[in-house]
Amino acid sequence: MTSSNFTEQLAQAVKETERIVCSYLPEEKGFQKTIFESMNYSVKAGGKRIRPLFMREVYRLFGGNGAEIEPFMAAIEMIHTSSLVHDDLPCMDNDELRRGRPTTWKTYGEDMAVLAGDALMVYAFETAAKAFQMGADAARAGRAIGLLAEKTGIYGMIGGQTVDVELTGKPVPREQLSFIYRLKTSALLEAAMMIGALLGGADERQMAAVEQMAADVGMAFQIQDDILDVTSTQETLGKPVLSDEKNEKTTYVTLEGLEKARETVREVSRRALSTLKTLPGEHTFLEELIRLLAGRDR
Amino acid sequence: MTSSNFTEQLAQAVKETERIVCSYLPEEKGFQKTIFESMNYSVKAGGKRIRPLFMREVYRLFGGNGAEIEPFMAAIEMIHTSSLVHDDLPCMDNDELRRGRPTTWKTYGEDMAVLAGDALMVYAFETAAKAFQMGADAARAGRAIGLLAEKTGIYGMIGGQTVDVELTGKPVPREQLSFIYRLKTSALLEAAMMIGALLGGADERQMAAVEQMAADVGMAFQIQDDILDVTSTQETLGKPVLSDEKNEKTTYVTLEGLEKARETVREVSRRALSTLKTLPGEHTFLEELIRLLAGRDR
Repeated sequence: MTSSNFTEQLAQAVKETERIVCSYLPEEKGFQKTIFESMNYSVKAGGKRIRPLFMREVYRLFGGNGAEIEPFMAAIEMIHTSSLVHDDLPCMDNDELRRGRPTTWKTYGEDMAVLAGDALMVYAFETAAKAFQMGADAARAGRAIGLLAEKTGIYGMIGGQTVDVELTGKPVPREQLSFIYRLKTSALLEAAMMIGALLGGADERQMAAVEQMAADVGMAFQIQDDILDVTSTQETLGKPVLSDEKNEKTTYVTLEGLEKARETVREVSRRALSTLKTLPGEHTFLEELIRLLAGRDR
Repeated sequence: MTSSNFTEQLAQAVKETERIVCSYLPEEKGFQKTIFESMNYSVKAGGKRIRPLFMREVYRLFGGNGAEIEPFMAAIEMIHTSSLVHDDLPCMDNDELRRGRPTTWKTYGEDMAVLAGDALMVYAFETAAKAFQMGADAARAGRAIGLLAEKTGIYGMIGGQTVDVELTGKPVPREQLSFIYRLKTSALLEAAMMIGALLGGADERQMAAVEQMAADVGMAFQIQDDILDVTSTQETLGKPVLSDEKNEKTTYVTLEGLEKARETVREVSRRALSTLKTLPGEHTFLEELIRLLAGRDR
């Protein structure tokens, strides 16, 4: 059960994360005002902020306490948002509603939404590079930027999106579905937690454990997403339900059924929790967070 | 006049640049094969490769002779190509032909073209980050990545594209047109030459001179583009002419007339050549290159 203490802690942590992410957004002035507005519109639409949240918590687990983590927290949220803006485009998922509001292309037009997604992606790297002027160890910050790009790109999130798009409407073997989930959803969580660990001072063995834990959290998160798409309501989710059916997408639920899906969420979450136990630091908050995500209803 | 010696040198330099850029492209295998193919299709479609070419020449001007420049050369060409792939989309310029071949979206579909542009953009940063493992000074490589992002993003190329898209079909004051050209076209050339200078070991005064020179080269390049759009043929250019008229775009030519445009190309190119004279190293190749671009017919 979630303790009321944790609920307060989480609300506070999300609030701080929001503040940090938003402090790196561009000021809405100058000839390019519209692109600044569309970027900020998308980022400020809300969301769980779990990537920057996990990043900071893992950073702290390893004793990190500097400001160098902040540009990376903002960067990973910008990357996540960039992917949503492009995902919603008419030529992709053609979604008009996200987090209870019109999607970026519905508000700013398709051309501006393409540019807003591009802008958020590049600004993420511009923001992350600010760590070099914030006293971060240059070699470590360099590796963190490399990790961020690797887990975002063709061997990470974008690679997963590609296979996902290609296989829409087609039967998807189990092996490929795992591949898609690992890349599309886990990769950014892996980047978040690994960057936190790296900048916090983790060694290579710990980095590998963190990567595995993040992969499991991502898998649980994605399967829970599939479950909610068939069991929740638009009011609760803030976006249309049954979208996978509409888009003819094979999901873990269509492939294995609802019961097996629920069991798998519990199983991979348990594995993530065991991995967490092998890491240093105070685990309680992360433990409760992983449990909460596995049982979330939106 | 262009000497035959220079022509040979240029052909050789373009060939080497192509080889370097292509050596960083992904192998076309695995579940994500299609995204790899669409990226490589776009980059291998050809082009003048002037950004990586200028980068390497400026690097050499300052005595640079390592391999650390190579990932940045590949990165800047990927970024340039990414912008072309998204520019050609139906919701942007809606172009079906580029360099004599069907555009990426015509060949791979709109969804894959959105992802291919995203993939090239992120892979550019993943590639640039390889410099950290190639013996580059970490602080310098960090600043180079920051520069690359800054000149690509909302205060650079993407910022310029945004204003360009917004003002299409509307009257554009002279001040805003200069702003668009500086960002849309000059910014990436500035990144190219400044990264070359930085990694080559330029001091701050020299960095500022290189930035100014690149801004002028970019301005000449863009105005020459406007000129060719009304004076050349599709056969010579490898893309449709009169596209600015079709897209109702204000250009330097529509604003100032053909004669003034030609004069300005000569004037800013001359200024770039004067700035070049203040820099160290052997200038002949760069001088001839700047002259060639000012007088190019495609």
